[in-house]
Formats: sequence, C-alpha cells, structure tokens
Amino acid sequence: MNEPNARFGPLAAFLPVLQWGRQYDRDMLANDGLAAVIVTIMLIPQSLAYALLAGLPAEMGLYASILPLVAYALFGTSRALAVGPVAVVSLMTAAAVGNLALQGSAEYAAAAIILAMLSGLVLVAMGLFRLGFLANFLSHPVIAGFITASGILIAVSQLRHILGIEAHGHNLPEILGSLASHLDQINIVTLLIGTGSVAFLFWVRKGLQPVLERIGLGKRTAGMLAKAGPVAAVAVTTALAWGLGLDQAGVATVGEIPQGLPKLALPAFDRDLWVSLMGSAVLISVIGFVESVSVAQTLAAKRRQRIHPDQELIGLGAANIAASVSGGYPVTGGFARSVVNFDAGAETPAAGALAAIGIALAALFLTPLLFYLPKATLSATIIVAVLSLVDLSVLKHSWGYSRADFTAVAATILLTLLVGVEIGVMAGVGLSVLLYLYRSSRPHVAEVGQVPGTEHFRNTLRHKVITEPQIVTLRIDENLFFANARFLEDFILNRIAPDRGVAHVVLQCTSISTIDLSALESLESINDRLRDMDVALHLSEVKGPVMDRLKGTHFLDDLTGRVFLSQFDAFKALRNGREAA
Amino acid sequence: MNEPNARFGPLAAFLPVLQWGRQYDRDMLANDGLAAVIVTIMLIPQSLAYALLAGLPAEMGLYASILPLVAYALFGTSRALAVGPVAVVSLMTAAAVGNLALQGSAEYAAAAIILAMLSGLVLVAMGLFRLGFLANFLSHPVIAGFITASGILIAVSQLRHILGIEAHGHNLPEILGSLASHLDQINIVTLLIGTGSVAFLFWVRKGLQPVLERIGLGKRTAGMLAKAGPVAAVAVTTALAWGLGLDQAGVATVGEIPQGLPKLALPAFDRDLWVSLMGSAVLISVIGFVESVSVAQTLAAKRRQRIHPDQELIGLGAANIAASVSGGYPVTGGFARSVVNFDAGAETPAAGALAAIGIALAALFLTPLLFYLPKATLSATIIVAVLSLVDLSVLKHSWGYSRADFTAVAATILLTLLVGVEIGVMAGVGLSVLLYLYRSSRPHVAEVGQVPGTEHFRNTLRHKVITEPQIVTLRIDENLFFANARFLEDFILNRIAPDRGVAHVVLQCTSISTIDLSALESLESINDRLRDMDVALHLSEVKGPVMDRLKGTHFLDDLTGRVFLSQFDAFKALRNGREAA
Repeated sequence: MNEPNARFGPLAAFLPVLQWGRQYDRDMLANDGLAAVIVTIMLIPQSLAYALLAGLPAEMGLYASILPLVAYALFGTSRALAVGPVAVVSLMTAAAVGNLALQGSAEYAAAAIILAMLSGLVLVAMGLFRLGFLANFLSHPVIAGFITASGILIAVSQLRHILGIEAHGHNLPEILGSLASHLDQINIVTLLIGTGSVAFLFWVRKGLQPVLERIGLGKRTAGMLAKAGPVAAVAVTTALAWGLGLDQAGVATVGEIPQGLPKLALPAFDRDLWVSLMGSAVLISVIGFVESVSVAQTLAAKRRQRIHPDQELIGLGAANIAASVSGGYPVTGGFARSVVNFDAGAETPAAGALAAIGIALAALFLTPLLFYLPKATLSATIIVAVLSLVDLSVLKHSWGYSRADFTAVAATILLTLLVGVEIGVMAGVGLSVLLYLYRSSRPHVAEVGQVPGTEHFRNTLRHKVITEPQIVTLRIDENLFFANARFLEDFILNRIAPDRGVAHVVLQCTSISTIDLSALESLESINDRLRDMDVALHLSEVKGPVMDRLKGTHFLDDLTGRVFLSQFDAFKALRNGREAA
Repeated sequence: MNEPNARFGPLAAFLPVLQWGRQYDRDMLANDGLAAVIVTIMLIPQSLAYALLAGLPAEMGLYASILPLVAYALFGTSRALAVGPVAVVSLMTAAAVGNLALQGSAEYAAAAIILAMLSGLVLVAMGLFRLGFLANFLSHPVIAGFITASGILIAVSQLRHILGIEAHGHNLPEILGSLASHLDQINIVTLLIGTGSVAFLFWVRKGLQPVLERIGLGKRTAGMLAKAGPVAAVAVTTALAWGLGLDQAGVATVGEIPQGLPKLALPAFDRDLWVSLMGSAVLISVIGFVESVSVAQTLAAKRRQRIHPDQELIGLGAANIAASVSGGYPVTGGFARSVVNFDAGAETPAAGALAAIGIALAALFLTPLLFYLPKATLSATIIVAVLSLVDLSVLKHSWGYSRADFTAVAATILLTLLVGVEIGVMAGVGLSVLLYLYRSSRPHVAEVGQVPGTEHFRNTLRHKVITEPQIVTLRIDENLFFANARFLEDFILNRIAPDRGVAHVVLQCTSISTIDLSALESLESINDRLRDMDVALHLSEVKGPVMDRLKGTHFLDDLTGRVFLSQFDAFKALRNGREAA
C-alpha cells in the first residue's frame, strides 16, 4: 500500500542511516551535538538507577547506554528516539531473571545479558517477518493499566533503598511483607538522604523552572536546566557521603564501578537457560516496542516525519543485540529522554550516537567519582520518574466507555500488582483478545422490514415497518468468517425451526465484504437445513467482489432461492409470489 | 436473544430429560427401542475396535458405551446423537496417554480414565461459562483437514494388526518406519483374515444393499442390515479362529475380557498427572464437541428441532465424567452411529439409554464369546470406517477459494501426519486465528472522491471522481478497535505527513458500528498529530449509537474539525471554505 522508502533501495530501507546520512551537514551536527550533551547528562543517573532497579551492577546500566545507541542510530527510523535502559523494562528484567538466579550473583548478570540477546533476536525476527502488527493486540487501556501498575510496583520496590533496609519480591504483597518485616533496621541517615532527594526532585520538577525564568533565563533554557535535577542530586549527595564518610554510618553507596569501556563478548549459550528466558524475552520485546513506537510516532508527527514500525523493530532489535554483546541488559526507547532529545533540537539519530560518546566518556573517567553515590539518591530519581507514569484514571475512563475495556484494564492492574508483571500483561492481552474474539463471534443480526412508503428496510425492533409472516429478512452487520459462521447457523435455525409459517429467508448482505471458506460452508449448510424445512434461502444486495467469489463455487447453483439486486426487489417478488400461489 | 427453553424452568434447561420426558409414551418407546437394538449391534464391534485403536483393553470400549449413553440421555439436547468411543478421539487419547505411560500398562489405562474425567470437567465448565463459542475458532477447513489426516494416520496405524506385526508411533514417519522394520515377521494367516475382512466390509458397504433389495427386502431394511456387516465379520472370523485354533497359528485375538458390568470408582488424583493431561483434555474436548455438535445440528434440522450448544457441552461433559467413573475413556457423539440411530427412528435421547442396556447385556453375557475374536477383524472395521473420513479435496477446494484457508488446512494436514495429532490441530487453530487477527488488523481503507453529478463518493482508484488536493477523504471499511487502531494511525500519518498540500482529513464512518477505547485514543492521537501538522480532522456519516458514545467523551470538544451529517455536506463545506479563504 505504502512503500515508505520508494526513493531508496532495499539496503537503505534496512539501514536508514544511508538515507539521512547523505544530507548530513554541519548545522545538523551542531544541533545533534547539543541534544546529545543534554541527553547524556540525563542518561547518566538514569542508567545507574535503572540498573539498580533491575538488580544489576551499576556499570551494566552505562554499558546499555553506549553501543545500543549507536546500533539504533544505524538501524532505527525515528529521528528523536533516545534508547537505553527504561523503568518498566528494567522491572521486567528483574522479574524474568529473578526466577532463575540470585540477585547480585554472576549468573544473574549473565542471564540479563542473554535476555538482551533474546529480545534483540525476537525484535529483529518480528521486523523481518513483518510481525509488528502483533503489537496491535496490546490494547491502549491494557498498556496504560500495565504501565500504571508497574509504576506503583517500582516505586514501592525502591522504598527499601530509601529506608536503607533489605526487601525483595516481585509483587505488592511480597514487597510490602518483606519491607514490614525489616522495618526495625531502618537507617536514619539513609532515610534523610532519600526523602531529601525525593523532595528536592519533586521541587525541581514543579518549582525550579519558574524560579529560573524569574531570574531571567529563557523558557527553553530553564526547561533544559530543570532536567538536570537528578544530576544535581547525585552530585550533592555523593559529595556529602564522601565528605561526611556516610558509608561508615551504614549508608549504602554504589561502590566500585569498573573503569573503562565494556568488553565485547557473545553471551554464553546454555540451551535450557535460553529456552526458559524466551517467554520473558518476547514479553519484554513487545512491551518495549509498543512503548517506543508510540513515543517515536508522537515526536515524528510533530515534524511531519514518519517512522516505519517494521524497521523500528529491527532498530530496537539491533540495539538489544548491541546491549548483549557489550555487557548491557534489555533497552528500548525512553519516553522522558526522547522528549528531551526532541526539545533540545536533535535532528537525526546521530544525536543518539553522540550521546553514546558522552556515556562512554563517563564510563572512562567518571566512575571513580560515583563510589560514594548513595543508592537512596538513585532510588529517589526512580521514584520521582515513575510516579509520573502512574495514572489510575484509565480505570474510570474505561468504565464509563466500555465494560470490555474496563475488564481488561482492571485485570491487568490487579494481576500486575498482586502476582507480577509477566502474568499481569499476559492476562491483559489474553483477556482483550478473548473479549474481542467473543464479540466478533456474535455479530449484530437485525431482522428488518420495509419502512412504509420507502424502499428502505430497518430493524423491526426499532422501527414501525412492514413485514410478512412468511418472509424473514435478516441483515448481518459483519463480515462472515469462521468465528461467526456457526453463530449464523445457530441464529437462523433457532429463528426458523419453531416458526412453521416461514417459507422464505432473505439475507441482506449490505455489510458483508468477505465470506471465508468456513462461512461459505455454513451458508451451504444453512441452505441444506432450510431445504429440509421447506424454506427457501435468498440473498439480497450482495457486493460485487463477494458475488465474484461465490460465482466460483457451487453455492449459487445449490441455492434454493434467488439472489436479488436489492432488498426491495426481494420483498416485492417474494410477497407477490405468495399472492400468486 | 433466544431463550431456548422459555416454556421450562432453569432446571429443565439444565436437565432436558425433564422436557421430553413429560410427553414420553409407548410409541416413542417402541421407536427408540428399535433404534437402540440397531445401534447396539453397530456399537459392540466399534467399542472393541476403538479401544484397540486407543491402545486400551477391549472392555474399556464397552464400558465407555454404557454409563456415558445414560448420562447423555439425561443432559443432552440432541434427540438423535449416539455417543460413545469414536475414531479421532481414540487416536487423540492414544497420543495423549502414550506420552506418559507404556501401552498395555495399568498406568496407561488409568491415565485414559483420568483423561475422560478431565475432558468431562472441561466440557461442563465450558458449558456453564458459555464458552461454546471457543469452538468457533476451529474453522471448517481446519477441522476437515484434521479429520482427513487423522483418518490416514488411523488407517496406517491399523496395518500392524492386519499384518500381524508389532509397530508403534504417533505420526506417519514413526509408524511407517516401525512397520518397515518388522515386515519380516508378517503372519500370513492374520494377513488373510485382515485383508479378507477389509474386502468383505468394503463389499458390504457398497454391494450388499442392492443384493438385499433384489431378494425382496425393503430399501430401509436392506440399508439397516448392511450396517450389520462388521458384526457378521466379527462372528465369522471369531468362529473360524475358534474352530481352527488360529490363536495357535499366531493370530492375535482379543483374549479374555472381564465378564460383568464396570465397577464405579473415582479416578485416582495425582496432581502432576492431571496437570500434564490437561492440555490434551482441552483439545479432545473441543474436537469432540465440534464433531458432535455438527452431527447433532445436521440431524436436528431435518426434523425442525434445535439443539443448544452450551447445553450440549454439559451433556457431553456428563457423558465423559460417566465414562471416567465407570472405567471408560473419552467419548463423544459419533457420526455414523448417530445417522443410523436417526434413520432407525430414534425419537428421544432415551434411545441412547436403551442402547446402553444392550451394551451392558453384551458386557454381562457376550464377552466369553469374544475370546477368539481376531484383532485383525477389528482393525479391518476401523480401516473401512475411517477411510470414509479421508477427503483430500478440501485442499483443492480451499486453494481455489482463499489462500488463507488453504494455508491453515495444509499446515494442519502436514503437521498432523508428520508430527502428530495434537501439534497438527493446534497449528491449524493457531494459524487460522493468527491469519484472522492479521486480516482484521489491516482493514480496507479507501480514499474516496465525488462521483460527478451525484452525491455519492467512491474509491479514487476504481472510479473517475472529483477530488480536491487540500481535502483527503478516507472511508474505513471496518469497525475500529484495538487491533486496527494503530494501523489507522499509521495509515493516516503516512498518507498526510509527506503531502504538504493537505488541510483537511475527513473520515467517512459509514461502515463503523463500534469504536472501542483504544480506537478512540487513536482517533484522539490522530487529531493531535494532524493538529501538529496544521491539518483539521473531520468526521462524516457517523452512525447514531457511535455518536452517542463519542458524546460521552472529550473527543468531540477537542476535534479540530467538524462532524458532518453526510460526506457530500463535508465536501461541499470544506471546498467552499477554501474558496472563501
């Protein structure tokens, strides 16, 4: 239908850098460079924090923010998307890997690296086989519910670092129970740092920008500076912890981070481990893709640009494979940082590659400075970030609009909170597909009659219409295919079997654009069964393409009745037939 | 919509015997009795043969034909359906249980009994929760392909008894390989009995009825007598084997069958075993239900009667639970025997209960006579019965009609033959649902223009129509919901983003009957993104109920354009708007 890259060859479609790279100039470099600086400043604390959330060493967050950005710059189609570790995917990583290994162990980190490889392969495969449409089955309300529940789960899970206690678990009851049983071990200094950071970050988010504007900064500069809040919190609390020797007072800090760039290596191949991570990899891929694409689409539209979902799969897949071979963990496009990237003026995916240089420099030179960074500060940045994701209004919203949507959302939220992220999102998807299949298996069928004085036929239940007892006309408001073929059979036979006065059944086919083989066989069977009851089956208003298809079969030869051009013709002819009889 | 049992209370709906039982009289009893005698004669060799096919002791086939028939008579709604062991379900039982235990072992039989209980519980649960619609997702071509492939598999698997050799396997390569490696052990006497029985049974099926009619029997009597062919084959070969002492010549016979009625007992509860059989139980339930319902519906329609699919689930579930507690294995309605039952004049489900008495008498008194019954004879009856199921024409049929249907059928047939029944049917269902989801996720969208001199708007690609470069009108030929919401976003943005001349997008909503929450959010997002591009979004010809729903939301307030009653109004107004501008 749409050939997105008609001007370019197939290689350029697969490597979008060949498209935008040809026109790359100094101005673009300047704009991308500025955006990269701002994104780097934002990404450093985020990388460290989300690695903490995933239960991984801090350096894995940095590693997941270097090579993946370069890979996405080569293969991705969005000009503003900033990839890297994100909150929900980090939580899902913790859930997936937590089942297989103990947090902090070498196996745990190795499993996360494999998970990134699997996610990458799944994404690339989906892209190559054009399976991006599968993401459509994550309905909007289910995603909204899932993100909200994940946000709550993440915020609650981070309370342990704010309180300075041990606590584990993959759902609300586990985490709360674990927190409650360790409450006696609260570290007051940690709590002060944590709550102080949270308060500061909330203030930065709401209150700093107006202050900066009042002291004469431009609106845009003020907005950009306000994004540096987490970096300020990191710097101040690290300095405090170092200067006051807070690690001696029991404040947990990030500790030693290996200095230097990640080493490249393929993840170990262990068949059983790969198989057991596969399901989680599919979930992470789909969720990450949906999140990422919706951000990318929103931003692209603002500049009348387009993104290509199937190529995005390949871009994100390449990013995850890159994460895996460079010691990172699953990544995707982040909402907040992409918006910042866009607002800062990023023009091409090169901005991402430049940010990768920034993070690489941080890994080379900054890591010794992070030894004293309190974990409570990182948790504070996570809590403030994810609480903006929490939006329970989707429940009210969907309740008012459609009960099917509400059911799917409520199940997603409840199961995510009470059981865990994987069950939660699978239940949401399963339920919405099931409700959809259910609905489509019972199409609306109206028994119609003639509106007096017109050639129109309307529902007998809603309008005063003319009917004849021996003629039953049914209008089917849906395409006919296997899911509703049997329903149609049941419906017609239930209507006709007990009503011995009926001699003609007319199917008004106005809304039917396709009839698949199952439905054709159902029509044949309806025809046969009606013949057994001495009732003739007629069709009216059959669309051209449907008629073409039926003409290739025996159905029209076997039909006991006729095919009428219009419903009015059918009614007139069958009615007169009776009068003649 | 239809309250099937409006004249009766809820108990009578659940126990249909309370409906037909009230009018039961002597004439009905006579008719049912005659039908029961004929079905009993047919069912005895079938029960024994299908137990052999399932790898179970012969008596389990008889037990599966006593209590289940009574249970169905109480709970079922079809007046002609004859339940009991059937070929495809027996094959599926062998596949399910064969993974867990060795054929011939006590564990094997115990697992089959548990499988019957699980199938019964699954069917009853589906009935109570009105999940019968799930069976709709087995499309007709997939069922046809599955039955055909199963028939081939069954016939080939029975060759071992005809040849008198050992051979095992759950798919064609396994069975053929196993047969080939034992070919040197062929027993000639067995082969003679087997091929003789097959030849005789084929002759009975095609040639006996005309002969009987020629010697003066009525057509109906001749037809009924021809059904007794398997009994004649059983009697003759058993007598031969006994008289000539063929068991000494290496002819495998049925051997000792415990005399008497089955003992009632609940199956052993072993959690792991139940869990591992659950998937197979669901498959067997759904396949059995679909087969059974289509037979029951066909026969009911011939007498203008109705069956109630959700109550049928309960009837078949009760039959399976009864099979389990009385030492039987999974049952369902059989095609051939139901037709015989119907033709013999069965008027109510009581015919089934009477046939149960017949089989019970056989279990009490006939079993000693069956000691010398050659297994080759039973296999011959199976082969002749299942070859009538084999019909590869569905492949040609579906190829000509629709490639999606063909793909699903071909996958079902190939995978059933090459891998096994469970994978085969799951692949068929999975593929047809997937193809359906794929199709529904990409609805037809036509860009339309005004047919000159009319108020009609038609596809610009098919008709010479009037368009305006600044107005793009899109007609969406499908309801809007989560599966195609994102597609619509992509479609519209891909169409509009590169076309800077566009100022108005009109969605013509003639074919839209529902908009779910995901689609509503997509419309909001389309509106926002078009606003970012300075393009207004308008709607035309929105149906009443859809408009009602939209009025409850903010969408209409936020809409950048207008809602027009007709597409013609929209085109006129927007066109003039430009001229005024």
